[in-house]
Amino acid sequence: MPYFDAASSAPLHPVARQALQASLDEGWADPSRLYREGRRARLLLDAAREAAAEAVGCRPDELVFTPSGTRAVHLGVSGALAGRRRVGRHVVVSSVEHSSVLHAAGDTATEVPVDRAGRVDPEAYAAALREDTALACLQSANHEVGTEQPVDRVAEVCRAAGVPLLVDAAQSLAWGPVGGDWSLLAASAHKWGGPAGAGLLVVRKGVRFAPQEPADERESGRSAGFENLPAIVAAAASLRAVRAEAAAEAVRLRALVDRIRARVPELVPDVEVVGDPVHRLPHLVTFSCLYVDGETLLHELDREGFSVSSGSSCTSSTLTPSHVLRAMGVLSEGNVRVSLPLGTTGEDVDRFLEVLPTVVSAVRERLGAPTATASTGQGASLVVDALGKRCPIPVIELAKVIGDVPLGGTVTVLSDDEAARLDIPAWCVMRDQEYVGEEPAERGTAYVVRRLV
Amino acid sequence: MPYFDAASSAPLHPVARQALQASLDEGWADPSRLYREGRRARLLLDAAREAAAEAVGCRPDELVFTPSGTRAVHLGVSGALAGRRRVGRHVVVSSVEHSSVLHAAGDTATEVPVDRAGRVDPEAYAAALREDTALACLQSANHEVGTEQPVDRVAEVCRAAGVPLLVDAAQSLAWGPVGGDWSLLAASAHKWGGPAGAGLLVVRKGVRFAPQEPADERESGRSAGFENLPAIVAAAASLRAVRAEAAAEAVRLRALVDRIRARVPELVPDVEVVGDPVHRLPHLVTFSCLYVDGETLLHELDREGFSVSSGSSCTSSTLTPSHVLRAMGVLSEGNVRVSLPLGTTGEDVDRFLEVLPTVVSAVRERLGAPTATASTGQGASLVVDALGKRCPIPVIELAKVIGDVPLGGTVTVLSDDEAARLDIPAWCVMRDQEYVGEEPAERGTAYVVRRLV
Repeated sequence: MPYFDAASSAPLHPVARQALQASLDEGWADPSRLYREGRRARLLLDAAREAAAEAVGCRPDELVFTPSGTRAVHLGVSGALAGRRRVGRHVVVSSVEHSSVLHAAGDTATEVPVDRAGRVDPEAYAAALREDTALACLQSANHEVGTEQPVDRVAEVCRAAGVPLLVDAAQSLAWGPVGGDWSLLAASAHKWGGPAGAGLLVVRKGVRFAPQEPADERESGRSAGFENLPAIVAAAASLRAVRAEAAAEAVRLRALVDRIRARVPELVPDVEVVGDPVHRLPHLVTFSCLYVDGETLLHELDREGFSVSSGSSCTSSTLTPSHVLRAMGVLSEGNVRVSLPLGTTGEDVDRFLEVLPTVVSAVRERLGAPTATASTGQGASLVVDALGKRCPIPVIELAKVIGDVPLGGTVTVLSDDEAARLDIPAWCVMRDQEYVGEEPAERGTAYVVRRLV
Repeated sequence: MPYFDAASSAPLHPVARQALQASLDEGWADPSRLYREGRRARLLLDAAREAAAEAVGCRPDELVFTPSGTRAVHLGVSGALAGRRRVGRHVVVSSVEHSSVLHAAGDTATEVPVDRAGRVDPEAYAAALREDTALACLQSANHEVGTEQPVDRVAEVCRAAGVPLLVDAAQSLAWGPVGGDWSLLAASAHKWGGPAGAGLLVVRKGVRFAPQEPADERESGRSAGFENLPAIVAAAASLRAVRAEAAAEAVRLRALVDRIRARVPELVPDVEVVGDPVHRLPHLVTFSCLYVDGETLLHELDREGFSVSSGSSCTSSTLTPSHVLRAMGVLSEGNVRVSLPLGTTGEDVDRFLEVLPTVVSAVRERLGAPTATASTGQGASLVVDALGKRCPIPVIELAKVIGDVPLGGTVTVLSDDEAARLDIPAWCVMRDQEYVGEEPAERGTAYVVRRLV
């Protein structure tokens, strides 16, 4: 049963399991106590910190363990902001950061846009930095589409402006240290095959930092609460272990991902592979399928034994498409993210490629999606009422009638589904049609498309 | 090697270990995902929540899991305060709360004093509540001396005043649910034999609550970050397991603690057993030994194989005595807390009672402590310069010379050690001498004692 969602949570690495079990025996006591069980726990904690620091490329006293990657981000952002309170509280982020970064940065943050591949331009970061900018944040690689960001160059422009850069390294730390002259770094163990319950926050020496939450004496006053030592020990041990395999696995998984990137558009019509084709994580690929409902697609793939995730609106609790796909301006319907865990076999990938076309066409058939655009040449403009209908129905209705207007004619789609705002323009790009624009309608929004081909 | 510090962290319960190991296989995926690994994780999470809620005595949707007990307290206090922002932000706490509660409550909180047994008076709580009181906090039982608090009666007075009461149940939840009409409750799994990495926060329906930190969709938006499912499952399973043994173990451990409470003052001269003799946890006893340095005592007991903790100033990083002992006004020097884990044997307790007197007298001998007060009848007053000397030296110096002044004469001890402020008055109580008072001296403080016997 292939699990292809390592980017959500990687299966526990065997080394993590061993380390965790061993430290259940050796590391359950309070490391701040003076008796032998406490001293033993302290030794384990110190050793874990050294191992993690070495893998990150920092000093052990710059690194604290947190209960999760999300906590590392929240503590890092709030501490860095408070440390530079006198400068201001303006934050610069990319528009494709993980939600934990966006939540911590708050509503007043400046979002630096990304290109259609999901990558930021360092010049745009430089332009977004202001006199009152206290902090800039950038992921090392995107969690939804795998695009690697130019962290080293953004770190340079931040350094030149005297603004600290916090790097969310959650998706990439398994593959190697983050280069560049960054100031803070956050990561999460369960993304690299470590256990849940451990994240890490690095604050470089010299960075102004003022912890904002009620503190205690643990983790240098930067992360309160009893240390989760078994998780910490397992996190450090497994980071070291995955790094030992990283170079070889990166080559192997990159070949498998390349196979998916090349074959999916050949096997499945009307698919857009998204994310940067060059600057990307080795194990992750994302594509979107026109005229497909993401939730149904996930269920069907699950029935076939494949666990993947999706940024489609129907798979989110808010019924809005992923903010990452939105920022990239790419299709969000029928979205699938495949992220391969270490050890994924070529056979599993081949079986996925065998199953996918059948599953997609079954979903499309059920939704009545168009298979070919047969022009019947009707009036110069048409209005499609897709009110109350959810993704991908508005786009399917559009595609069904586009052939009914002459070249130069328009189709207006009335829709109150958030995903339509993203997917109708994306469909136009894929289909070489002209997206004229949107305007408010009596109910919902009117999306106007001009037929060009 | 008997470990007698369960109140810091209990050894992992066998049921917790089993549950944790099983859920490393079944519960590593993201419970918010739709595929089978995610659904399996969700089922485990739901079952754990139901089990924990049943043990607490609340509805499952009132309970969220947090990464630690400290986080549960911080999130509970900040959310409850924000929920009643319009009322004010005044907080009432007892003076013997855990540091996590005091830190979260802040410097402006009103501290309700305790009696010499460490117990609050519900009337004093009632008197401390104000028009602008947003929240009251009270522990179910004290972590340092084991005194149980009258939570049900304090909950009544809070309810009458319309103020929510947050109960820190960290020390008592293993022994049974917390009675009374409280509003919020926090606890920590590693105190009941669960693993590190799991706490719980209960917010009763109807309590105004506004989470203050950047949220995500996990744990009802009340505790952000990837759920530590193996720890959560193990926490719930072990809570159920310790509860099944609680009644029988309480009887057995109470008898062992009674043995310590009775025998220590018989075996060791100049000892004060502190904490409420009636309203107390079954497994915990604390005593202080005059003329003894707590850190040395801990080391010597550790060498004999006993792991205990201490609230003495020399064992804290700030060189101040425990705020709990200070609030109770009891002796802090040579302080020892014994907290017995489940399954502690009578033989281990007997060996402790055998070892303790020898260890204490060895430490006293090394410090030159007085063995008997031989009056030599000198002048009417004496000044002892103990400046620069740490606990227990100032009290030892006082005891050495008290016999040198006639009845009615005074000894003035000059000391710059924080512990002296607590321990000199406590010594006077134990020795039936009169503590006249303190006044600032050129260096440090002058503590004046009148000889009565």
